Amino acid sequence: MTRVSIVGGSGYTGGELLRLLIAHPEVEVVQVTSRSRLGEFVYQTHPNLRKRTTLKFSSPEQLEPVDVLFLALPHGQAQTKIEHYAALAPNIVDLSADFRLRDAAVYQKWYGSPHAAPEWMNKFVYGLPELHRAEMAGANYISGVGCNATASNLALLPLVNAVGDNRADLIETASPIIIEIKVGSSEGGAEGNPGSHHPERSSVIRTFSPFGHRHTAEVMQELGLPNVSLTMTSVDIVRGVLATAHATVKPGVTTKDLWKAYRAVANENPFIRIVKEQRGIYRVPEPKILAGSNYADLGFELDESNGHVVAMCAIDNLMKGASGSAVQCMNLMLGLDETTGLEFMGLHPI
Amino acid sequence: MTRVSIVGGSGYTGGELLRLLIAHPEVEVVQVTSRSRLGEFVYQTHPNLRKRTTLKFSSPEQLEPVDVLFLALPHGQAQTKIEHYAALAPNIVDLSADFRLRDAAVYQKWYGSPHAAPEWMNKFVYGLPELHRAEMAGANYISGVGCNATASNLALLPLVNAVGDNRADLIETASPIIIEIKVGSSEGGAEGNPGSHHPERSSVIRTFSPFGHRHTAEVMQELGLPNVSLTMTSVDIVRGVLATAHATVKPGVTTKDLWKAYRAVANENPFIRIVKEQRGIYRVPEPKILAGSNYADLGFELDESNGHVVAMCAIDNLMKGASGSAVQCMNLMLGLDETTGLEFMGLHPI
Amino acid sequence: MTRVSIVGGSGYTGGELLRLLIAHPEVEVVQVTSRSRLGEFVYQTHPNLRKRTTLKFSSPEQLEPVDVLFLALPHGQAQTKIEHYAALAPNIVDLSADFRLRDAAVYQKWYGSPHAAPEWMNKFVYGLPELHRAEMAGANYISGVGCNATASNLALLPLVNAVGDNRADLIETASPIIIEIKVGSSEGGAEGNPGSHHPERSSVIRTFSPFGHRHTAEVMQELGLPNVSLTMTSVDIVRGVLATAHATVKPGVTTKDLWKAYRAVANENPFIRIVKEQRGIYRVPEPKILAGSNYADLGFELDESNGHVVAMCAIDNLMKGASGSAVQCMNLMLGLDETTGLEFMGLHPI
Amino acid sequence: MTRVSIVGGSGYTGGELLRLLIAHPEVEVVQVTSRSRLGEFVYQTHPNLRKRTTLKFSSPEQLEPVDVLFLALPHGQAQTKIEHYAALAPNIVDLSADFRLRDAAVYQKWYGSPHAAPEWMNKFVYGLPELHRAEMAGANYISGVGCNATASNLALLPLVNAVGDNRADLIETASPIIIEIKVGSSEGGAEGNPGSHHPERSSVIRTFSPFGHRHTAEVMQELGLPNVSLTMTSVDIVRGVLATAHATVKPGVTTKDLWKAYRAVANENPFIRIVKEQRGIYRVPEPKILAGSNYADLGFELDESNGHVVAMCAIDNLMKGASGSAVQCMNLMLGLDETTGLEFMGLHPI
Repeated sequence: MTRVSIVGGSGYTGGELLRLLIAHPEVEVVQVTSRSRLGEFVYQTHPNLRKRTTLKFSSPEQLEPVDVLFLALPHGQAQTKIEHYAALAPNIVDLSADFRLRDAAVYQKWYGSPHAAPEWMNKFVYGLPELHRAEMAGANYISGVGCNATASNLALLPLVNAVGDNRADLIETASPIIIEIKVGSSEGGAEGNPGSHHPERSSVIRTFSPFGHRHTAEVMQELGLPNVSLTMTSVDIVRGVLATAHATVKPGVTTKDLWKAYRAVANENPFIRIVKEQRGIYRVPEPKILAGSNYADLGFELDESNGHVVAMCAIDNLMKGASGSAVQCMNLMLGLDETTGLEFMGLHPI
Repeated sequence: MTRVSIVGGSGYTGGELLRLLIAHPEVEVVQVTSRSRLGEFVYQTHPNLRKRTTLKFSSPEQLEPVDVLFLALPHGQAQTKIEHYAALAPNIVDLSADFRLRDAAVYQKWYGSPHAAPEWMNKFVYGLPELHRAEMAGANYISGVGCNATASNLALLPLVNAVGDNRADLIETASPIIIEIKVGSSEGGAEGNPGSHHPERSSVIRTFSPFGHRHTAEVMQELGLPNVSLTMTSVDIVRGVLATAHATVKPGVTTKDLWKAYRAVANENPFIRIVKEQRGIYRVPEPKILAGSNYADLGFELDESNGHVVAMCAIDNLMKGASGSAVQCMNLMLGLDETTGLEFMGLHPI
Repeated sequence: MTRVSIVGGSGYTGGELLRLLIAHPEVEVVQVTSRSRLGEFVYQTHPNLRKRTTLKFSSPEQLEPVDVLFLALPHGQAQTKIEHYAALAPNIVDLSADFRLRDAAVYQKWYGSPHAAPEWMNKFVYGLPELHRAEMAGANYISGVGCNATASNLALLPLVNAVGDNRADLIETASPIIIEIKVGSSEGGAEGNPGSHHPERSSVIRTFSPFGHRHTAEVMQELGLPNVSLTMTSVDIVRGVLATAHATVKPGVTTKDLWKAYRAVANENPFIRIVKEQRGIYRVPEPKILAGSNYADLGFELDESNGHVVAMCAIDNLMKGASGSAVQCMNLMLGLDETTGLEFMGLHPI
Repeated sequence: MTRVSIVGGSGYTGGELLRLLIAHPEVEVVQVTSRSRLGEFVYQTHPNLRKRTTLKFSSPEQLEPVDVLFLALPHGQAQTKIEHYAALAPNIVDLSADFRLRDAAVYQKWYGSPHAAPEWMNKFVYGLPELHRAEMAGANYISGVGCNATASNLALLPLVNAVGDNRADLIETASPIIIEIKVGSSEGGAEGNPGSHHPERSSVIRTFSPFGHRHTAEVMQELGLPNVSLTMTSVDIVRGVLATAHATVKPGVTTKDLWKAYRAVANENPFIRIVKEQRGIYRVPEPKILAGSNYADLGFELDESNGHVVAMCAIDNLMKGASGSAVQCMNLMLGLDETTGLEFMGLHPI
């Protein structure tokens, strides 16, 4: 059994990691830290874990050496103590934004302050298996992914020459690409704020960020898109992200070409599904049926009259957009089947 | 025009009062106080008021004399300064719990501390027009009502001999009466707490108080019921209360008797409606269609085999359960038609 | 009192018209027709009207002459009997899509069949007062508006030279304009379908139309935009539309220029508000607080680095997007103040 | 591998069975029947199964012999063909109401028509393992459970002498027991109706059955309670039931006695958990965190001043209230660990 611990286990991504790792057949969870909940049973914070574990939150000061350390801290903290964590475990998966970007100047531009450990930025593999699977085998350090970046990257993955020369190259990457993203409330984390108070947050359609969201940097870096914009709108759901990307295909590209490209990506990736049906209720990707699952559902529609392609990706932000991808990365890092512990297929209806 | 001010205007009941009073044809709103929002436009807090008023929040220290003062403060504050407020206005409507009960010992039992102005307790009329209309004409001081107490009192009103000798006396008042109440999130007020954070509050069915809710005291006092219990359950709605009361009718009481009693109450009270249909979607009282309206919708069903009567009342907790009743009381106090400014009939669908 | 009737009163727009017209001080509702509910009280279908009207649904065959006839029929029906209706009333407001477009060929392209009364297409004024106020005074025939078209048209109105020469001309109208629209379930009407069954419709983020929505034709016609695309996504709300439009400003256009243009539009139009705040919860237009109100809330944000402007408009689809605008049109047609009967300001919280 | 088939697989309980059985390590799903979806992939109806199975719906006429047959038909159908099904499989689990009751007269009273196969009524074990575990080992025929009956039965199980002489006997079973049940929309099944249309069903608090619900018969039969009443209220959730039962304890019974009784039940049953916390957000049983899990969360509160006990049980109606219990029964029937295939622990937040 691989011994793993979670640093920062009281938030939503930490709780989701716990849920997955407790049930993972190849892993033993050794410690879960939380300063604010120190000494409490983890199920008092994450009530779904009741009767499943008697773990209590422990102090971050008393972390023991393990095989794999998951860091689920607020952004900015992992980078200040990365040497300390690296001394405790040969393998680290950091779910925060600290090690997602490769360029210190880019980091400073989007996050507003210099990176505290720039020499570590290139030691991490970006944590999206669909883009970096080969590098993950045997890697020591893997970053997390931004949930909105993941929905965007996967929506566009079949359309750009992102990974190796077997990928399609179907859209005008220099033209503006508008990605409209609708998100649930769990994306904001476990700490409340005035706008997350139920009477204010219920039933909202709130475009809280028209452009300039930090996750944009991950899409630019990973897909090599210079002219991409993310617009963020909150809607009344807890888990879920739907990215709807608007791009322009190259001259002559047809719906048939797109089908071929999407099928190739779905065939290579166990958690990618294509949803494009002519009838029934579920014809397009929808996040509601993905709660708790690690799938990313992709869809597309091409207006052949003008080359406008609408590419969609639905995920559970806490799973494929955070903790699910993190466990998938750990599996690849350890040489396990990448789907281990991630078999839950989601619920219908829900 | 009657000059009115609101003390404590940043909360939900204060905001709802503002909405009603700004549009009230017989009233001019002079001041609205808030310490935390001092100097801000009221529409920055209550966004529905944008383009409808240029009022700003003013300091409670600079309150000017007016004709009617509405107090919408947190519970416990009005009683400590009631002399001060009475010096500023001949008429006061206090929406808090401070002057709803008539007995200082009862107050202490339910609120846990002695009342700060017990000599004022009997100067106030309890603010439910359906029970105290006659006393309100010319009254100077009227209390608010608890929203759950109001749903309970109105559910049972046609069944008990509550007001004068023209009322029915249909249930065994000494037998246990169980009132199951389902409430929306606005009942908790404008200040958030960990349990009101949208990811935790969304989709809940949460029985947060099995018995012992403070509003029980108002039901006991107003209906004279010694053996009544309120069970509170939060559900996923913002505005709305449904009280479902379980009682036992006296021997021989029939459905026909109940119809007669309910019709009498509906006929006397402009905001009481009976909802008891054999077909269609809306056969029973439901709070969702009452958002923003001052109606209380009543329904009932009698199991003639065992005398079990289920009596229902749906209201908007911020309207009939708080600010709507307060304006209705002001209307009666001032000799206006009691429906003035309360004509909004609710929305369908919503 | 102006005598009005509603043809087709059992649907959501018919119900909303009834709500508005029953409370309208200058109007008397004579008849409301419905074949399926013939003889039933209107409040059995529209439960918010209980205790407010004793009207019953009457037969469309027994329509009496009135001053104003509102047609709230399914699309395609008004055009086949327009001569009949015109014989019954000098003034008609048709809420359907039948008389919104001016060109029979355009109608056929978007609606798939020839128009049944092409000679009537130019007798109607398009029913958006913000674009056609002057023409409405004294007009006999006014069309309805598409709710998504209205949100789109109003979002972009301050940016294009739509009405006369006093308007701005701020965006590149030949460049692609992407409008992402999020809508509630009432937009689908009162008749259910498999996808509107609550377990399937609840919590959705469902992009049901990536492009090609029929309302696109109204945006092209009214704003003169040749290259505009509407993408429709259903979310979990009943009433409400948010349109988020992505366009490119002309070289040199600044945020200050946009403020000037938006302020001009808000000043000319009583139901247009600008929502663009630096703090508080409600910083951008949101449909949730507009339920039941006739306001259109506009907002915008300009990325001056690349000219990308994000323009937003929130409305209640049944009010400003349908019945509210229809009553506003009637007011203008009759020479009344255009806000008469449309004063409800919306609720907060809700 | 045990070979199983599902008769009636297009509804919600059939879909949930499929989800569980496809992932069950000891089972192979041979056929799933549906007349209306004949020949379609099951994932077109149950979109969560996409990429997990290539099963198609087959005809009920072409059912093959298997080891276990699950019947997930509308109520009333299994009883007419039970001999046919029994000829196809030695083991049957019937999820409908057809074989839950033991007395033909009771069946007729609650279901309104005579039972078509009364001689089969006593061949079935009632499908709640917490009440009939011992009888299930080696049983051939097991019925389903009513979801509301299950929430009621489990809420009260620790308080009544239901199973053997090791159970408590803590409440006055002859006194009226009021059970208030709040339910989600999936309880109504996959077929829509006018009241399930999203604009009408969203945000409801709708007491659709004040008493007389058919599941009452199962509570009377299984717990031996002569005087029990179920009141059903729909709320805005898809999956979930909360039963809140009001009873009176026998003289002298204390909170400590209740703790002992509840702990005993939780210790004997792997899917029973007690939720009774003094702090945190999740202090009482709540269905929202149970979506997809087979847990039944129990809680209670005793008013020692008057003996009023409020006993709560939260379940997922499609899991513990239907398909989850059915799989648990199959496990017991086959001698497997009863938790096999039912390990999913639910999600937080959701």
